[in-house]
Amino acid sequence: MKVAILGFGSVGQGVARMIREKNLGLSITAIADSRSGLIDNKGINPEKVLAKKREGLPVGSPDVTARSILTTGDYDTLVEVTPTNITSGEPATTHIRTALERGKHVVTSNKGPIALHHRELCGIAASRGVALRYEATVCGAIPLIHVLEHDLMGNEIRALHGIMNGTCNYILTRMSEEGLTYDQALAEARQMGYAEADPTYDVKGIDSAIKLVIFANTIWDWNARFSDVEITGIDQLTPDALRLAEEDDATIRLIAEAIPARRLLRVSPRILPRGHPLVVRGTLNAVTLEADMAGSLTFIGKGAGSIETASAIIGDLLFIKEKYDRCSRKKT
Amino acid sequence: MKVAILGFGSVGQGVARMIREKNLGLSITAIADSRSGLIDNKGINPEKVLAKKREGLPVGSPDVTARSILTTGDYDTLVEVTPTNITSGEPATTHIRTALERGKHVVTSNKGPIALHHRELCGIAASRGVALRYEATVCGAIPLIHVLEHDLMGNEIRALHGIMNGTCNYILTRMSEEGLTYDQALAEARQMGYAEADPTYDVKGIDSAIKLVIFANTIWDWNARFSDVEITGIDQLTPDALRLAEEDDATIRLIAEAIPARRLLRVSPRILPRGHPLVVRGTLNAVTLEADMAGSLTFIGKGAGSIETASAIIGDLLFIKEKYDRCSRKKT
Repeated sequence: MKVAILGFGSVGQGVARMIREKNLGLSITAIADSRSGLIDNKGINPEKVLAKKREGLPVGSPDVTARSILTTGDYDTLVEVTPTNITSGEPATTHIRTALERGKHVVTSNKGPIALHHRELCGIAASRGVALRYEATVCGAIPLIHVLEHDLMGNEIRALHGIMNGTCNYILTRMSEEGLTYDQALAEARQMGYAEADPTYDVKGIDSAIKLVIFANTIWDWNARFSDVEITGIDQLTPDALRLAEEDDATIRLIAEAIPARRLLRVSPRILPRGHPLVVRGTLNAVTLEADMAGSLTFIGKGAGSIETASAIIGDLLFIKEKYDRCSRKKT
Repeated sequence: MKVAILGFGSVGQGVARMIREKNLGLSITAIADSRSGLIDNKGINPEKVLAKKREGLPVGSPDVTARSILTTGDYDTLVEVTPTNITSGEPATTHIRTALERGKHVVTSNKGPIALHHRELCGIAASRGVALRYEATVCGAIPLIHVLEHDLMGNEIRALHGIMNGTCNYILTRMSEEGLTYDQALAEARQMGYAEADPTYDVKGIDSAIKLVIFANTIWDWNARFSDVEITGIDQLTPDALRLAEEDDATIRLIAEAIPARRLLRVSPRILPRGHPLVVRGTLNAVTLEADMAGSLTFIGKGAGSIETASAIIGDLLFIKEKYDRCSRKKT
């Protein structure tokens, strides 16, 4: 299967590394970063491009743009891993729309297009008979979209609760375990590389809310928007609040929750007993699904990281490869 | 899709109830319990058969046997849910072999055939182009076989650790939290219906070892046997051992683990820190997979129960239905 990669930051490089290191039957025929691109229909050697990137060089020629790759490149599946813009969803939404309309499969880690245009993009994919997969947009390496779409078939999902932002969970873990103030824990998270210079997106609960919208639209086919989520961040939490929780053998975590019976979409700091399965430490993510037959199921894993995100993208690529190969083999 | 159900105890009845309650596109054309059976190629009304069972009546005629259903019945998929015999694997293995050789798909919750004859049965299924699925043999409602076969594609699984027996976990939870002796906790587990009159199979670690073998053979294509597992049960554990663990803010759980680099298959009581993701309470199951790309992933859920096991079986049935329908639709 031929793959075009748009975006060659940490995630794009992780995907290229894994395609190089593993014998997966995937060939990269185009790569673009923000400055340049290259196309080779016979297959690009990822090693050479990764080496250029390490030296700070452009990956290809400034004449080869995302647009030229999308419209003229020879690829079966687009891997869209450009930076997320959660307000406009661009340029990723245009990239994805263009590829789907050409009858190409799409795999993305980009939350913008999926949170803003899920229904429209799924509609285009369905009409063209191709796949749009986005496991990597939510909770990193935990294969929750696969679980929801395939593994729990026949179940009705009645609620979803989870910790979907590793930065907040790290800050809350440190406040709780070391008695740090919010500002101290945030400074530490920055030092560790877990928080951005501007942490608003994480600590105000925006990132969690976006993931919650992606889950809700996937599970219940809602057309929910980010603005439908009630949000309270963690930036106003005091060590006193945490201390009070600890006195009851409990702690506080930032929980995103969706309950269809109450049409509830909410992100807020919640008090949880210490032994609760969602009380995970550090940058971990954890999600509990309430299913009518399966009961309560909890999934815990790494929510971010170059190779962890690549794991989700590679999983989607191989899912597409197997599904469409199998049927076309059967046809002949 | 037409389904024949062999075995009409708690699991078989759970499957029939769910097929009746949900609009899944599944039709039951044959049912047998240990005494009788019935075949109706136009579709059996599950409600009537469940009512007979509630009244203690045979489900059908003594002339209709498992064998006659298997060899003459009109079904696409066999649901094999007769009681497990872990020594001989019979009669389930013969049922499954017969169905597969007739080119029928098989879904089972029966650990015997899968633990004893995994490679042979998978070989027959592959040669006939049909599916053999057994999600319900391991950890109840947690869709681990799906996750391993599909969701983590491209990942190498480097280790698996888990709590695979709810009876033991209940006993250990009660010993740890209430300071009960092993005998007291076992008596309580019996009262609650979590332990059999003869608890050997659970408390000696045999059930966990069987599940571990099923996992290892699935993930690494080993041809491991039950006798390859080093086993220590929980029946010799003293409250003192637990108290010592508690003093270090830790506890004891019965952990099944497989590590291919060391060719290790072991079931034994292990000390785990209190906050460890595998320290779940009561009858829950929990499994951690170590994957090369995805990192450490933990899955927690109910390991037993009529509807929870039905959830796994229904998931397998719908997986088969979707997979084989899709390709045959594409063919035409």
